[in-house]
Amino acid sequence: MSYTAPVKDMLFVINELAHLDRVSALPGFEDATADTAQAVLDEAAKFNADVIAPLNFEGDKNPSTWRDGEVVATPGFKEAFRQFGEGGWQGVVHPVEYGGQGLPKLLATPCIEMLNAANLSLALCPLLTDGAIEALLTAGTEAQKQAYVPKLISGEWTGTMNLTEPQAGSDLALVRTRAEPQGDGTYRVFGTKIFITWGEHDMAKNIVHLVLARTPNAPEGVKGISLFAVPKFLVNEDGSLGERNDVHCVSIEHKLGIKASPTAVLQFGDHGGAIGQLIGEENRGLEYMFIMMNAARFGVGVQGIAVAERAYQKAVAYAKDRVQSRPVDGSAKQSVAIIQHPDVRRMLLTMRALTEGARALAYVAAAHSDIAHRHADAAVQAEHQAIYEYLVPVVKGWSTELSIEVASLGVQVHGGMGFIEETGAAQYYRDARILTIYEGTTAIQANDLIGRKTLRDGGAVAKAILAQIDRTLGELEGCASFSSNPAYRSLHKRLTTGREALASAVEFMLANAKSDPNAVFAGGVPYLKLAGIVLVGWQFARALLVAEEKHAEDKSFYDSKIATAHFFADHVLPQAVALEASIVSAKNNEGMLALSEDQF
Amino acid sequence: MSYTAPVKDMLFVINELAHLDRVSALPGFEDATADTAQAVLDEAAKFNADVIAPLNFEGDKNPSTWRDGEVVATPGFKEAFRQFGEGGWQGVVHPVEYGGQGLPKLLATPCIEMLNAANLSLALCPLLTDGAIEALLTAGTEAQKQAYVPKLISGEWTGTMNLTEPQAGSDLALVRTRAEPQGDGTYRVFGTKIFITWGEHDMAKNIVHLVLARTPNAPEGVKGISLFAVPKFLVNEDGSLGERNDVHCVSIEHKLGIKASPTAVLQFGDHGGAIGQLIGEENRGLEYMFIMMNAARFGVGVQGIAVAERAYQKAVAYAKDRVQSRPVDGSAKQSVAIIQHPDVRRMLLTMRALTEGARALAYVAAAHSDIAHRHADAAVQAEHQAIYEYLVPVVKGWSTELSIEVASLGVQVHGGMGFIEETGAAQYYRDARILTIYEGTTAIQANDLIGRKTLRDGGAVAKAILAQIDRTLGELEGCASFSSNPAYRSLHKRLTTGREALASAVEFMLANAKSDPNAVFAGGVPYLKLAGIVLVGWQFARALLVAEEKHAEDKSFYDSKIATAHFFADHVLPQAVALEASIVSAKNNEGMLALSEDQF
Repeated sequence: MSYTAPVKDMLFVINELAHLDRVSALPGFEDATADTAQAVLDEAAKFNADVIAPLNFEGDKNPSTWRDGEVVATPGFKEAFRQFGEGGWQGVVHPVEYGGQGLPKLLATPCIEMLNAANLSLALCPLLTDGAIEALLTAGTEAQKQAYVPKLISGEWTGTMNLTEPQAGSDLALVRTRAEPQGDGTYRVFGTKIFITWGEHDMAKNIVHLVLARTPNAPEGVKGISLFAVPKFLVNEDGSLGERNDVHCVSIEHKLGIKASPTAVLQFGDHGGAIGQLIGEENRGLEYMFIMMNAARFGVGVQGIAVAERAYQKAVAYAKDRVQSRPVDGSAKQSVAIIQHPDVRRMLLTMRALTEGARALAYVAAAHSDIAHRHADAAVQAEHQAIYEYLVPVVKGWSTELSIEVASLGVQVHGGMGFIEETGAAQYYRDARILTIYEGTTAIQANDLIGRKTLRDGGAVAKAILAQIDRTLGELEGCASFSSNPAYRSLHKRLTTGREALASAVEFMLANAKSDPNAVFAGGVPYLKLAGIVLVGWQFARALLVAEEKHAEDKSFYDSKIATAHFFADHVLPQAVALEASIVSAKNNEGMLALSEDQF
Repeated sequence: MSYTAPVKDMLFVINELAHLDRVSALPGFEDATADTAQAVLDEAAKFNADVIAPLNFEGDKNPSTWRDGEVVATPGFKEAFRQFGEGGWQGVVHPVEYGGQGLPKLLATPCIEMLNAANLSLALCPLLTDGAIEALLTAGTEAQKQAYVPKLISGEWTGTMNLTEPQAGSDLALVRTRAEPQGDGTYRVFGTKIFITWGEHDMAKNIVHLVLARTPNAPEGVKGISLFAVPKFLVNEDGSLGERNDVHCVSIEHKLGIKASPTAVLQFGDHGGAIGQLIGEENRGLEYMFIMMNAARFGVGVQGIAVAERAYQKAVAYAKDRVQSRPVDGSAKQSVAIIQHPDVRRMLLTMRALTEGARALAYVAAAHSDIAHRHADAAVQAEHQAIYEYLVPVVKGWSTELSIEVASLGVQVHGGMGFIEETGAAQYYRDARILTIYEGTTAIQANDLIGRKTLRDGGAVAKAILAQIDRTLGELEGCASFSSNPAYRSLHKRLTTGREALASAVEFMLANAKSDPNAVFAGGVPYLKLAGIVLVGWQFARALLVAEEKHAEDKSFYDSKIATAHFFADHVLPQAVALEASIVSAKNNEGMLALSEDQF
């Protein structure tokens, strides 16, 4: 059940694909050198392996428990979270002035991956706290920032996001929770919120709930939603904790996975009203929530990579250990470790290629975010921000979809043992299943990718990315290994086809969005998956260019990378053509809406 | 949580695609008319909906329990199983002379689908009992048949298959359980068997364990395995129950799914030896076991269809009920039921197309089996047996792989509610996960499909099937709707491409099996999936030909079928090309075995 962070692959991506040197050239990131990266990742790897990972299986067996409104986390979690806070891990990416380390997102991302691989349930608490910090830093007053952010960064307090209500899931227009001004600058909040991750627990002294609610006479729909901070315990002027606020956890859910993470139903205002502070301006809550949400969406994408990595490691260990059947090529008379069998190889390489590829894309996205935040030139900022925003739904949607496939393959590699809970492989299969749902389902990500990220700028960013892929393809064709190494030729061929499929899908979206929105949105998830496959294929192509240059420095590592890229080219990239067919076929036929409801 | 058997679709497949009229023309099947089919299916639908389905969720919440060697099934199971036996449902396909109904497999298969859709865990007990009956009928003496089979058919007793040992899973050559002759015609059996489904329980008065074991001085490997019947209670001459035999359940597993089905560790001979009778000849146990296994493999394929159907029904019900967000085409100002949203449609149609398609292929296979057993002409028998045998690993492998995808989509349709266990969608996702593993993993099915079913006859059966697909394609192109209905053209186009991909894969297998077995077997699972997709696309093409003829008789039904076929053509069949690429690319590159174990 152990976890060893893939520090070497992480550093390869950070340094060679995401170009840490360009990030550390940005103002304020001067300390984020390759040496820093190595030191931070080594430290994170050690902490997560020693302190966090051992609690993962325990959390599944002994989930958090609810009693009389109080939630007690799995034994060991409270102490581990204390060490997490004291170690400064909550603050890696946050500003130094509030107690953070002020490091780039590019270095925070591998830390988040490790924490999630070590323990998805526990990691959700910091993930939500990160979102609360982002929202407060963006929209809070200086007093609010001072009151909340340092405690959140130190791990003394934690944060939550309160969006969902029973009737309002993906559709936040239906939010009914209300906030009534008290005349003293505070509000009283009334309503029920569900699916609140770590909405109640005993790991921190206070919990800062960020809550979407409507003020009296607010416009209907999403334009009438405001954001409020509602702490579990009110905070006195001097920062000490005051009265218990009127927000109570009435139950927690019995879930398929991430069982150690308490998913709370929170009742606001049953005893007179929960005291809340408005964050930012009235009726702009959704906008602020999207800031949180975008950070959280990227984070959930990283969760997908994390659980995929953990499942891969476990499957590899089992496949090396389990002896069963002779080799099909007759190369041995005795039964061999199953890692020798071609289909087990196929499964392990699928898991590996998807995981490494998703990691590369996510870290590259993180570097774009860093440049967008810190570059001196506003035009460069805007360019990188646009690419980052295009990539976020892909990282979220694609990395989480593949995490289910990878975790499922992990079970399969274990055979019958995979179905036994004590083995541990099944936990990843259960845990991963939430990732394509929360923080916006894959369809919601796809809608975002189509609407805000592809159509709104007339496909400009999508085409800019396609042009970058073309340049990489040119470089690949021009390098010496192209003639000597079939991996290079295969990736070039399949990525060329994939790139054309993606270009065709973008054109389809642009051409039909107005005349046939149903056809366009029916192809949304296939478009997202197509983008994921092609953009990841592109990262493997870039990795081959690095391998071309540095192969002699570390032959075994680059041979592995080349073999993985080759596998991705032959076994994953060909799906691009099938996805394109699925997308464009929605046009000019009866469409998916042909059947009446009764016919289902 | 209700289940309504899709009797109409089942009868469509039985009558129009699997040609019940040809089966009822066979000797002994004269009574199996269309009226009989309707009556049997209606009765089965009612029984399973009323008696079996309501226990499914309960079984997940309150699994079977073990105490001091005894297993108590979920409350309600014992009574339901009694009604199952009394209703004659165990005997549908078995010979009249032993108390069965002697109906064709084509009619037994929908009954088995319904039972499994209603309750996968409970249905496993009859499924294993069916296997035991098959083995006894094939290899038992008349006295053995008389002693066991009528009681197994009546449901008074149940049967098990005891293959697996801790070191011997897929690799039965490693079986160590031993059987020592006593000189009186009986044997004493010693050993440990694991993963024994319904290996101990309180639903029947006796349990007949069929056990693989080695006699003294038997050859090593699979050629030294014999089959023994080891009843839980010894059976007296007069058929009454005698002493408790020395086989004991020392524990049951804590599993991801099918929790109500007790998975036993059985200890044979800890107290002097378990008394067993040899079934058939010594050292031919594996051969007999394969008879059971082939029946069971087909049955597990049907389990995949069953759980997919149940997941689909649940998702449809939720999608019609859940109101969330306005339509993307602006056709309404208010939020609508989510079944109106294109991506929900895409998910539901994927679930539906895969499930209906898999059902069609399985039932068609069942009809081949019936003809193979009963046709007057031995040459016709052989032809149909060969096709049936080609189809079995496809039905098993493909239907179970898709059941995981369908159950996962079912969770996704439910959004956050899907992750909550009380909703029930997650149970199908957990339950389905065993189906690609037991009775031979998908890779084992693929090895069978390549080795015994494709290579051994030089691709003759595969090519015969391809020729049949060509005839269907010709008929499709020739029918009137080909010019008027895009569904017909789309399916023709995609099936043509798919058929070429399958033909190319078969050629690849034939050409490279000797020179590069690793490359061939690395493509095994993709080959199995490719065969599944193309053979199912073929069934949809045949359905379109029926629709062409009968559309006026039932417009809504045939419109649904056409829309589903169209969806399959545009969204599933295109994967054929990607799978072919995956298969043939294994040749002439470094292959999947390029990496050393250390590089994983």
